[in-house]
Amino acid sequence: MQDVAAFLGFVAGTLTTISFVPQLVKVYQSKSAKDISYRMFIIFILGVMIWISYGILIKELPIIVTNSVTLVVAVAILTLKVRYDRV
Amino acid sequence: MQDVAAFLGFVAGTLTTISFVPQLVKVYQSKSAKDISYRMFIIFILGVMIWISYGILIKELPIIVTNSVTLVVAVAILTLKVRYDRV
Repeated sequence: MQDVAAFLGFVAGTLTTISFVPQLVKVYQSKSAKDISYRMFIIFILGVMIWISYGILIKELPIIVTNSVTLVVAVAILTLKVRYDRV
Repeated sequence: MQDVAAFLGFVAGTLTTISFVPQLVKVYQSKSAKDISYRMFIIFILGVMIWISYGILIKELPIIVTNSVTLVVAVAILTLKVRYDRV
């Protein structure tokens, strides 16, 4: 049961982490991000940064790694939004 | 240190959970969601559902509750996208 739980946690973490990649690809390809919420990404990025601090504090590498990947992708989406909304 | 970690985990979980609310409000108010990625939300919702199963399995109420809130908001965003994209 411990193994099943660990496996589910791994799958869930992978899915919620990689889910932001198609959003980044879509924004990059369409050069449009006006339906995306600034507030969502600012709050989300802040949350992910605190998740990383939490992971460092409790020394859990999977939390640090998955959230670091999410952070990079989320910051990239926000950066593209800032750029495309200005045009 | 245990307390600091628990507090950080709580704050991080709250932020990443509530971050989807402003996105829902934005889509609802603008009646537009075409910049939002279907793939992102489908993969994300699947991931959140597995997080809930994981929470049930390891009997961690915070994981069950926060992910249930996220699930409701994410499904609402996806539902609005399906509706507005058809118009």
